[in-house]
Formats: sequence, C-alpha cells, structure tokens
Amino acid sequence: MMRWKCTCAYDGTGFSGWQSQPGGRGVQDVIEARLAAVLGGPVRIHASGRTDAGVHAAGQVFHFDAPWRHGPVKLAAAMRHKLDRAIQIISVKPAAADFHARFSVKGKVYVYHIFQGDADPFTRPRCWEIPRRLDIRAVRAAAAPLRGRHDFKAFSALNGAEDGDAADTVRDLRRLEVTARGRRIRIVAEANGFLYKMVRRLVGALVAAGEGRLSTRDIESLLASGARTARVETAPPQGLFLQRVLYR
Amino acid sequence: MMRWKCTCAYDGTGFSGWQSQPGGRGVQDVIEARLAAVLGGPVRIHASGRTDAGVHAAGQVFHFDAPWRHGPVKLAAAMRHKLDRAIQIISVKPAAADFHARFSVKGKVYVYHIFQGDADPFTRPRCWEIPRRLDIRAVRAAAAPLRGRHDFKAFSALNGAEDGDAADTVRDLRRLEVTARGRRIRIVAEANGFLYKMVRRLVGALVAAGEGRLSTRDIESLLASGARTARVETAPPQGLFLQRVLYR
Repeated sequence: MMRWKCTCAYDGTGFSGWQSQPGGRGVQDVIEARLAAVLGGPVRIHASGRTDAGVHAAGQVFHFDAPWRHGPVKLAAAMRHKLDRAIQIISVKPAAADFHARFSVKGKVYVYHIFQGDADPFTRPRCWEIPRRLDIRAVRAAAAPLRGRHDFKAFSALNGAEDGDAADTVRDLRRLEVTARGRRIRIVAEANGFLYKMVRRLVGALVAAGEGRLSTRDIESLLASGARTARVETAPPQGLFLQRVLYR
Repeated sequence: MMRWKCTCAYDGTGFSGWQSQPGGRGVQDVIEARLAAVLGGPVRIHASGRTDAGVHAAGQVFHFDAPWRHGPVKLAAAMRHKLDRAIQIISVKPAAADFHARFSVKGKVYVYHIFQGDADPFTRPRCWEIPRRLDIRAVRAAAAPLRGRHDFKAFSALNGAEDGDAADTVRDLRRLEVTARGRRIRIVAEANGFLYKMVRRLVGALVAAGEGRLSTRDIESLLASGARTARVETAPPQGLFLQRVLYR
C-alpha cells in the first residue's frame, strides 16, 4: 500500500461541488469512480478541503492509499484515461505515509474573477458580472484593513471552517491583492486557512466598497464586531478558483 | 419595418451549429425564439454564414427586419433579457435596406486555437489538443504558399462554399498567421470568403506539416492539384472561432 498525492483542476460548472453526493455529481465521485476502475476496487480520496457547487479549481490536491506497482506516471495516465473532460489530473506523486491532503495544509491561494459589464460567453461561466464599474481605489482601500491576522468570523458562513479549527475563527490573511485590467478585476487571497465561504464574503464586501455601499471604516467595524451580518453579501461561486494548496 | 444588423458571440459547445435544426438547438433557433418573444411574432434572421456544430463565434453578424420604435439600445436590451447565457448580443444597429449579412460580406477573420499537450479544463473545450510539440518553423513555412489568391478546392469539403460562389473555388487568403506562446498556438486566417470547412482543413494541413507528415512542397502540390484528398485532415470544430465579419 502506498500513499499518493494528486493535483487536479476542474471546471466546477457541471458539478455539485467537490464533495461526494448521492446523485454522484461531486468531483470526488467522478474521480473515485475512475480510480475504482483503475485499481479494481473502491478507493476513498481525501481533498485539501471541499469546494462549493460551481466553484472551480486550478490546483486542488487530494491523497489516497492504493497498491500500485507501475509508478506515478502510469498511474496518472490510467487516471486520465476516459476521465470526465471537465477534470484534469495535473500530477500524481508518491507521498510520505504521514502526508494528509487536508491536515498537512499550510495555506491556500484563491483567485476571484470579476467582470464589469456584459462578459462574453467564454468568460461568463467563470466570473461575477457586475453591471457598473467599481471604484478600484475604494476596493483597494477596503482590502488594506483585512490583510493580516484577524478574527474573520464576520466574513464566514455558519457551517464552520473550510480549513483548521471551526471554533477558532482567527486566520492569517497573508495576501489580499486587487488587480484591474480593462473591465476585468482579479482578487487574490492567500491565508493559512479559510473559514467557510470566507473568500466569497471578502469579495462581496470589497465589491460593496467599490460600489460605495460600504466604507473602509464599515469594513473595519465589521471585522472588529466579529458578528455575521446580512450587510456582507456572498459573491457567486462561479468567479472563484482554488488556485493552489500550500504544504510544508 | 426596419432592417437591423446584430453582432453576437456564442460558445458553440452546446449547440448543433448556427443553422436552425428540427431539435431547436441551432444558435439561430435560440435567437429567433427570443426575437419572437420580443417582437410578438415570428422573425427570420440571416447570418453572415453558418458555423458547424461546436464552432464558436466572437463576432458573428446577422440581420433581420422588424418594426421597432424604441431604438437599438432598447432592442439590444430586450434581446439580451432571458437569452441563453451561451449567447451574447454584442450590438444591435440600424442597417441600410440593402444591407445583407451574407451577401454584403467583404471578408471574414477566423482564429484557430491549438494546445500542445494536456490542456486545463477551462481551455480544453475551446482548442485542439495535440499530444506533441509541433515544429513551428515547419508550420510557418507551410503557411507561406497558402497565402494569397489560389484555388482552394483541395482544402474544401464537398458541401460547397461558406461564402461566395460554390462553383468558383478561388479565394483570396489575405492573412494566414501562426503565433506560438508557450504551449499555445494561434492561427489567424482572413479571406474575402471561405469554402466549406476550409479553415479547419488549412489548420489540419499546417498541423501535419508541424508533425513532419506533410512537407511545404506537399502542400504546394496539394494546392496546385485542386483535388480533395484524405491526406488533409479536418481540424476539430471546438478550436475554431469566427472572429469577425468584414463589410463595405
């Protein structure tokens, strides 16, 4: 028996999210079904964390244990064969026995895409279309107090944590960068771990700031209050990409 | 009654092509159904030409005649409302009574996307994935004799012409440019008109040249022979974009 670490990408559009579902349209279901065919028996895979329905991944990581004597390159090729084309197996590598895709996480990078106006049909399934231009200086100003180590409870949903301890809502938001190019805005968030829906709620708050509905001071107060509030909108899932999972 | 010129984009993935189909999954069917709802009666639209199943458009043009008193901006807004999200109405403008989306065409620009290797799931539905790297110098060398005014019969399919006279297979290929960036190759083709499947067969020949299966001299001979041949592969539809239709 060996432990394998796999990095994958998926277009979340047609899936009910990462997690296994009764209907079988979780990304996990599709990969587990493929692995069962490759290995000749049921295999459980363990991801760095769930992604919600419609959220995409450019670099999700999972691990699994399986007997396989033909090396990682052939294992990757076998997994790719006949796999749903909305999922890409980027790499498969042997992992240490104590590596765990979820519990070994040291950080995650998410990217959120916003399009100001009417996006073309190729961009549309992978961005948040907002009708008017945002005040980018206001968005950047609002991002500043969010960076660093804070209690992000106000920017989490009830279901607890995506990474780490659900009871402890303090996270270290190492990066929160806003770049604009033409009508496109890209927000990069990196933290040691995220609370449930935290990136989408941070983006919702930044967009509210860019539309003049929340001031930087409002965002500071929300953060300090530690109270979940309907004033913070959750950005839609299709703009969100799990970009990278950081280990060691 | 007024004539309207409309520019649109569509992701061809889920459609049976531009043309109206019994099943109703032609792009034309979806737009005509929307227009019928807006205008309160059946409307026939006329495109610059058909696109095959799976082919995308960044700038398809069609015209239609309709009574409408509220100006082009409101007409565009009404057409966008509840339209299938794989189709984008880019613009709607009043057109001269003698403008015809097909017969007034002065040229067309197509772009074809190739990915060398295993593309990510976001790129995959809009490119031709080829397993090995092409010899780009050989691709460029093979493109040179194809540019200009030639009888392109060897690079057409049996169903005749996309633009212009089907009996006359001479076209002026004003541009055939190959650009490479990392693993991506982009081929831009501009002509006064194209024969049926001509771009995809030109791309098939260029890829064969890049793989060493056809020499530049082979391509010159094919062009001179004017004979349709199985030696020229038709590139798959999902890499092809109708980029722009040129008028006047």
